[in-house]
Amino acid sequence: MPSALFKGVDFYNIDSLLNEEELMVRDTVRKWISDRAIPVIGRYMEEGKFPMEFISEMAELDFFGANIPMGGNEPVLNNVAYGLVMQELERGDSGLRSFASVTGGLVMYPIFEFGSQEQKDYWLPKLRSGEKIGCFGLTEPDYGSNPGGLITRAERTDSGWLINGDKMWITNGSIADVAIIWANTGEDIRGFLVEKERQGFSAPEMKKKFSLRASVTSELILDNVEIPFENELPKAKGLVSALRCLTQARYGIAWGVIGAAMACYDEALDYAKNRIQFGKPIASYQLIQRKLVNMITNITKDQLLALQLGRMKDQGNYTFAQVSMAKKNNVRNALNTAREAVDILGANGITYEYQSGRHMCNLESVETYEGTNDIHTLIIGGEITGIKAFE
Amino acid sequence: MPSALFKGVDFYNIDSLLNEEELMVRDTVRKWISDRAIPVIGRYMEEGKFPMEFISEMAELDFFGANIPMGGNEPVLNNVAYGLVMQELERGDSGLRSFASVTGGLVMYPIFEFGSQEQKDYWLPKLRSGEKIGCFGLTEPDYGSNPGGLITRAERTDSGWLINGDKMWITNGSIADVAIIWANTGEDIRGFLVEKERQGFSAPEMKKKFSLRASVTSELILDNVEIPFENELPKAKGLVSALRCLTQARYGIAWGVIGAAMACYDEALDYAKNRIQFGKPIASYQLIQRKLVNMITNITKDQLLALQLGRMKDQGNYTFAQVSMAKKNNVRNALNTAREAVDILGANGITYEYQSGRHMCNLESVETYEGTNDIHTLIIGGEITGIKAFE
Amino acid sequence: MPSALFKGVDFYNIDSLLNEEELMVRDTVRKWISDRAIPVIGRYMEEGKFPMEFISEMAELDFFGANIPMGGNEPVLNNVAYGLVMQELERGDSGLRSFASVTGGLVMYPIFEFGSQEQKDYWLPKLRSGEKIGCFGLTEPDYGSNPGGLITRAERTDSGWLINGDKMWITNGSIADVAIIWANTGEDIRGFLVEKERQGFSAPEMKKKFSLRASVTSELILDNVEIPFENELPKAKGLVSALRCLTQARYGIAWGVIGAAMACYDEALDYAKNRIQFGKPIASYQLIQRKLVNMITNITKDQLLALQLGRMKDQGNYTFAQVSMAKKNNVRNALNTAREAVDILGANGITYEYQSGRHMCNLESVETYEGTNDIHTLIIGGEITGIKAFE
Amino acid sequence: MPSALFKGVDFYNIDSLLNEEELMVRDTVRKWISDRAIPVIGRYMEEGKFPMEFISEMAELDFFGANIPMGGNEPVLNNVAYGLVMQELERGDSGLRSFASVTGGLVMYPIFEFGSQEQKDYWLPKLRSGEKIGCFGLTEPDYGSNPGGLITRAERTDSGWLINGDKMWITNGSIADVAIIWANTGEDIRGFLVEKERQGFSAPEMKKKFSLRASVTSELILDNVEIPFENELPKAKGLVSALRCLTQARYGIAWGVIGAAMACYDEALDYAKNRIQFGKPIASYQLIQRKLVNMITNITKDQLLALQLGRMKDQGNYTFAQVSMAKKNNVRNALNTAREAVDILGANGITYEYQSGRHMCNLESVETYEGTNDIHTLIIGGEITGIKAFE
Repeated sequence: MPSALFKGVDFYNIDSLLNEEELMVRDTVRKWISDRAIPVIGRYMEEGKFPMEFISEMAELDFFGANIPMGGNEPVLNNVAYGLVMQELERGDSGLRSFASVTGGLVMYPIFEFGSQEQKDYWLPKLRSGEKIGCFGLTEPDYGSNPGGLITRAERTDSGWLINGDKMWITNGSIADVAIIWANTGEDIRGFLVEKERQGFSAPEMKKKFSLRASVTSELILDNVEIPFENELPKAKGLVSALRCLTQARYGIAWGVIGAAMACYDEALDYAKNRIQFGKPIASYQLIQRKLVNMITNITKDQLLALQLGRMKDQGNYTFAQVSMAKKNNVRNALNTAREAVDILGANGITYEYQSGRHMCNLESVETYEGTNDIHTLIIGGEITGIKAFE
Repeated sequence: MPSALFKGVDFYNIDSLLNEEELMVRDTVRKWISDRAIPVIGRYMEEGKFPMEFISEMAELDFFGANIPMGGNEPVLNNVAYGLVMQELERGDSGLRSFASVTGGLVMYPIFEFGSQEQKDYWLPKLRSGEKIGCFGLTEPDYGSNPGGLITRAERTDSGWLINGDKMWITNGSIADVAIIWANTGEDIRGFLVEKERQGFSAPEMKKKFSLRASVTSELILDNVEIPFENELPKAKGLVSALRCLTQARYGIAWGVIGAAMACYDEALDYAKNRIQFGKPIASYQLIQRKLVNMITNITKDQLLALQLGRMKDQGNYTFAQVSMAKKNNVRNALNTAREAVDILGANGITYEYQSGRHMCNLESVETYEGTNDIHTLIIGGEITGIKAFE
Repeated sequence: MPSALFKGVDFYNIDSLLNEEELMVRDTVRKWISDRAIPVIGRYMEEGKFPMEFISEMAELDFFGANIPMGGNEPVLNNVAYGLVMQELERGDSGLRSFASVTGGLVMYPIFEFGSQEQKDYWLPKLRSGEKIGCFGLTEPDYGSNPGGLITRAERTDSGWLINGDKMWITNGSIADVAIIWANTGEDIRGFLVEKERQGFSAPEMKKKFSLRASVTSELILDNVEIPFENELPKAKGLVSALRCLTQARYGIAWGVIGAAMACYDEALDYAKNRIQFGKPIASYQLIQRKLVNMITNITKDQLLALQLGRMKDQGNYTFAQVSMAKKNNVRNALNTAREAVDILGANGITYEYQSGRHMCNLESVETYEGTNDIHTLIIGGEITGIKAFE
Repeated sequence: MPSALFKGVDFYNIDSLLNEEELMVRDTVRKWISDRAIPVIGRYMEEGKFPMEFISEMAELDFFGANIPMGGNEPVLNNVAYGLVMQELERGDSGLRSFASVTGGLVMYPIFEFGSQEQKDYWLPKLRSGEKIGCFGLTEPDYGSNPGGLITRAERTDSGWLINGDKMWITNGSIADVAIIWANTGEDIRGFLVEKERQGFSAPEMKKKFSLRASVTSELILDNVEIPFENELPKAKGLVSALRCLTQARYGIAWGVIGAAMACYDEALDYAKNRIQFGKPIASYQLIQRKLVNMITNITKDQLLALQLGRMKDQGNYTFAQVSMAKKNNVRNALNTAREAVDILGANGITYEYQSGRHMCNLESVETYEGTNDIHTLIIGGEITGIKAFE
């Protein structure tokens, strides 16, 4: 059973590359996850509910949008510390990290980058404190990997914008107070703030899923929704603005999934050392050791990859293709690590009483959202060859 | 969406290797699955319930224990036809095939092979007709891969046997009228029929699982259960008798999972041909074609493997190591096929509205039960090298 | 060390699916390879020479073009027996099988299918008897995967055809008496017989290769080569005729590589059982058993795939995409089997004193020629999706 | 064709983590390899000869044993710079890096660590300057993965030691002036310096290999070789001393193979961008991009792994299990990268005119020597589980 004394996984002395603040933040979130999330998250997964009571606690830890330099100040956290927060959250559950990713990378970030001063002043403090919840409405039923084709329309009226369209697979949708809606104006794609109270807006929750069950996934329906001009994000121009948000979210994912992988490795190792078959711990079998070694080798490399990406990001010197590499690589490895852990757990692997199966199910979503493995392959491929192999 | 007109997957004209009766039986079950199971099984999976009303319908199709020569007659089906039934059932859901595997291979088979005439006369017709349900109690909490170490005890009393112990991961346990309990008598391991009404016997259902949710998995608790002498399976002597049952069940699994793989391939192919991204069906992308080609190549080989195994079994000329190869190989391939299908389905992959995710979750159990991948590796390895690499 | 008593690899009683003639032919070639090729082929590989003295011996065994119904007679061998011959030859060396593939599938076949009666009468007996050697000139330096783009030109003159162009990677080129040259006439692609004595024709051997060193690979240079009208293959019309030859050759490869895989498995198993480390045979280690089990599982499936393909071919009912599946799958598996065998052999894996390293090096060519893995993926992908994903 | 202007592979701005001296040393060796090795190394490989004339040039660059603090001085290079030298050498050929690894890690290192002052004074300057060549005699025909079982005997005589035994797979053996021989004294394993002139010592070269052909591999035969007491390495006590040398060599390998992988990636990328098939560069095909992306992702991670290992080594804070992870992981990835590159090169992949095939062949040896993949798996597995799964 998971212990409150999670030690992390550090085969290559990566802690020595972190500064004191980074370590402290990491350990704070680690402890919170051990204390609060681990004991109950399996039940939320089973019941298909998001743990709403965690929002205020997470806000108190002050990491929503913590890598954004709000109000002209230094950001609360550098990008490495922020990444470590994502890692620890996802050690608990991908749903918790998803909530934080959406809040910080997909709602606060675009308001900060593309919003008016009024929008910033109103929303950023409320989102940071967990008083308000946001969601990011880009994906549509027929436009997943190709968001540029989105068909949601925003028409200019005398008093503002009239928006029509459907969004799908929207994390937090049904619990959000505000949605960032990306719509085509006929000229280009722009972003709009749509509050949940707007007439014609609804956000039915999508159920029937076996993944991210401790997270809210929704459809957003915009049926002649009218919003005033001041709800437009004035500096968001074109798809590229939306994609910049995705880059933020992908960065967080690249870190987050290391936490999920650590949880699985730790659980599988512990199980293997204690599970006796044929008179000895299964950890003494070569076939089991091989799996564990694969797991820790990948975790180690993925830690180094995320760390270097974070250092580059802190220096303001990084590319979206570099982010794609870390997202693609780290998620796939975490998924494979979870699968191997489930394998080691034997029959126990399929229950919510262990963590690995839950992580495995969750990571199927994480593998897909914010760009599938294939899409990131082609983004990187385009970068290194100079030739785009899709569209 | 799944169609009632499922055509199967046959890239290598394997139908030409089947006789008319085999094809007819296959098509009958295929149609039943399309008509009855496909429309509702996702809901059962979601709700975590076994579709009890299917039992009598399956019994009418007369395939419970259909490859057993009951009553001195020829079996209803040869082993290939029986395998095809398993394939079609699992095209619907691994839970349905599991029910049939347990009933035929793990309950009727041991009664037929090791039972007294009275046991046969009483139980076999009732199990065949679905009037009674059985389960197979071998695995224990601490003895999964190594059933020989089981600690359930049967002590001889004046009037029969006193049984104490716990069994775990028992398919059908909570709905079974009778359990075949394997226990150590101090001398050797023997099999016993324990009816659900016996004092001290209980079978609490195991919930909190994300796999085989449309199947019942239970613990069996035997707390000073007394049974008369005539409840012993007289010809079951030692672990080897229990293992012979596993061989029967593994044979059925090797066929069954081809059905799950077919369902996933079919769904993924259909989706890929109809899902438009960047202006064309995703089936036109090389990375998608690569996945589909891997899937159908594996299905084709696994069909040939199962078929040759079935032909050998019909000739009475096969080994448990050959069964291990087909179980190990076909389940792993089916699992990988399901994973690739989920990948192709993108975000939709994680919902119960599509089949592939459900199959993927189910196959995690199938990968483990009746011998993990590693155990079968070592069984085959022992056979080819002459050296046992475990114990 | 390789033994003259090679038993083959047959984990699934596949011999029982072969008729007496097929077994007899197989065993005859198997013995010839054990007696003649195995003792010396490593030296030929090392020295980079083709064993010319084997040609007449192979001819005596009468399998050049043995699956072609020459002279209106039944073919000497059905396609399964022919496949088994390829398997046994390649158990010796891919170079020997390549010689037979070229002779039968790429030279005799097109003469038989597309040639005039005079061409057949003259060349087929001489090729069958090994008196003459042929080669197949399709591939060009810039047109490998896309032979349809070939730039060799044939211009009609008063007395015949004037051919100009370069061919590359031509097996047997430098030792061939006649080359089947595919050239563009301006209207379409046609085949021509070019004898080695023709003015302007030269066939320099390509050296500097680490693969198929016991086989001759050549460039063909056609510099204003004039041939009479009667040297045209009259029934060869368009690229499709050349591709039909490739289908023949691919069929033989799909069988052949099973032989290479068998040799590697057999050698690795034997080594593992006899190599002692840490006081026991390395075959007793789980990590070694895992490799051996992977090897034999793949061999077994590939045998079944080739056999079913052969049966379909004998019934005249098969498609080029089915051949692509067997070529692609069986070669890749053979290559991986060789790699695993080399791994098991440890340091010995890299010498010509063992067979596996030689096979591994050879199979790199076999993986590429007659269609790379990727090309076959896309051929199959085109077939199952109805969408061509290249060109 | 390889260019003198090799730019390296740096997708993650790893250069920014290197200091000026490290970059300068790296670039010096890089240029030397481009200028001197790349143009001719294929021919040496083909002819099976070590380029003896390179020894003095390498010595002038002063990197033999450059990470050893000889004479009480700071080492010439820190461990990262030393690793970069290995990387650049192996970008040329694994044989060149092997020569340097043996000289520095397996000959100079043990003399430095375990030798007497006289031994150090005599040998270290001569080895550093290339005036003398050394080799490391640990492996025996029957003791590869298990060197502790070696049977070479050293018997104490009146005047020194009498050594009898056979060593195998010894890099540099036939060209070495001195061999470090590890022998069992009956009490423990010790190291001895045996000069080539000693009566009874011979070092026949091992030919018939397809890997490391531009490197010398030898048997060492010690037939009643007498050496004086002062030829014993006085501080080498037990197998652990020999293993410490292996750790040095493994460290260099972990870096070296990145160079081989870079060469393959660079060549494959260049080829893919310039090779036209079906009217466009093959780099525009998704299946090709997928391979290239896999390659560069692995190279990036392996760079980070080696760098962190180097930094830990410079701090004197690292374990042999950490070295095992980098050796195992980086070699396997380099081998797979070479295989993918060969695949992209198509038919050209099998010639010595391209680099990738040569690297692929070489890396088969590198995968095995200094600990196979399996052995390193079990070393790491032992570390993380606390249970040794071999012996």
